[in-house]
Amino acid sequence: MTGLRIGPRRVLGIDPGSRICGYGLVTVAAGQLTYVECGVLTAPADWAMERRLGEIARSLGEVLDELRPHEVAIEDVFSRINARSALALAQARGMALAVVGLAALPVASYPAPVVKKAVVGRGRAEKDQVARMVQALLGLGAAPRADAADALAVAITHARAAATDGAARVVPAVVSPRP
Amino acid sequence: MTGLRIGPRRVLGIDPGSRICGYGLVTVAAGQLTYVECGVLTAPADWAMERRLGEIARSLGEVLDELRPHEVAIEDVFSRINARSALALAQARGMALAVVGLAALPVASYPAPVVKKAVVGRGRAEKDQVARMVQALLGLGAAPRADAADALAVAITHARAAATDGAARVVPAVVSPRP
Repeated sequence: MTGLRIGPRRVLGIDPGSRICGYGLVTVAAGQLTYVECGVLTAPADWAMERRLGEIARSLGEVLDELRPHEVAIEDVFSRINARSALALAQARGMALAVVGLAALPVASYPAPVVKKAVVGRGRAEKDQVARMVQALLGLGAAPRADAADALAVAITHARAAATDGAARVVPAVVSPRP
Repeated sequence: MTGLRIGPRRVLGIDPGSRICGYGLVTVAAGQLTYVECGVLTAPADWAMERRLGEIARSLGEVLDELRPHEVAIEDVFSRINARSALALAQARGMALAVVGLAALPVASYPAPVVKKAVVGRGRAEKDQVARMVQALLGLGAAPRADAADALAVAITHARAAATDGAARVVPAVVSPRP
């Protein structure tokens, strides 16, 4: 995207939400994943939607400034079945995309089943299985909380996508998890 | 929201989109609507979604700074039938809500049929009917282009909603257009 890059790729995963937004940064160099940081951005549940989205947008901008990812990966919402929850999530996703776009970073999208298959090996894994596999893959002492684990999972999915420079913006047809 | 207000209510309508975002400002005092300004914010169609959302978010922030609305009205997306277009629109709406939320402005949402009924008198009006009615209601020399007309229409809908202070954030069950 911006010429030569020194050091490992820094991949930020985002699990968007209007009350809780998970994020997780991994680095990848020579196929080796390394955990850097994960966490959740929250907004009070009794705030109006626009205030929550604004608050999380501001916090997410700070996360980008601080963690300086090279690429961002985010879950796609177009595979969701429940229309109403998909629309609410799409709003949060649009906010997150705008923040990432303002930072001029490339974004890759992965449908939830692709992320689960890449991390757990099955497209229909439960949330706690995702968290445990993220813990194992990154050698963490404890499983991250669900939203942060989901963010790390999509970061891992993207970090593992074969083409380093061509991967951004492309939803891969197949993601091959390493054994 | 912020104590006493001098002068007419300034109501900004937003018709969110990730390629074209319409906006329109009206003022209302003693039941009298006055047109102030309308326009569209655009982002190149060949830009990636996040870059377009970021660009429109930046422009929309400038519109808020410049036009200084007291309240914002925006079309609800939950009544859309086509799931895919609703999700794309929800992303743009989430971006717009985040920008408005960062500016700490109250937002009211109106489903499209409510806006059409309030402006045209029928919930299933065509786009060009909305533009012509907006032109007539505000005494404009020409009909605004579609996206700006839709933004003015939702601003008019909100400006006409009876309760001045209680209207924000509340989706009214019935909006009574003046004859």
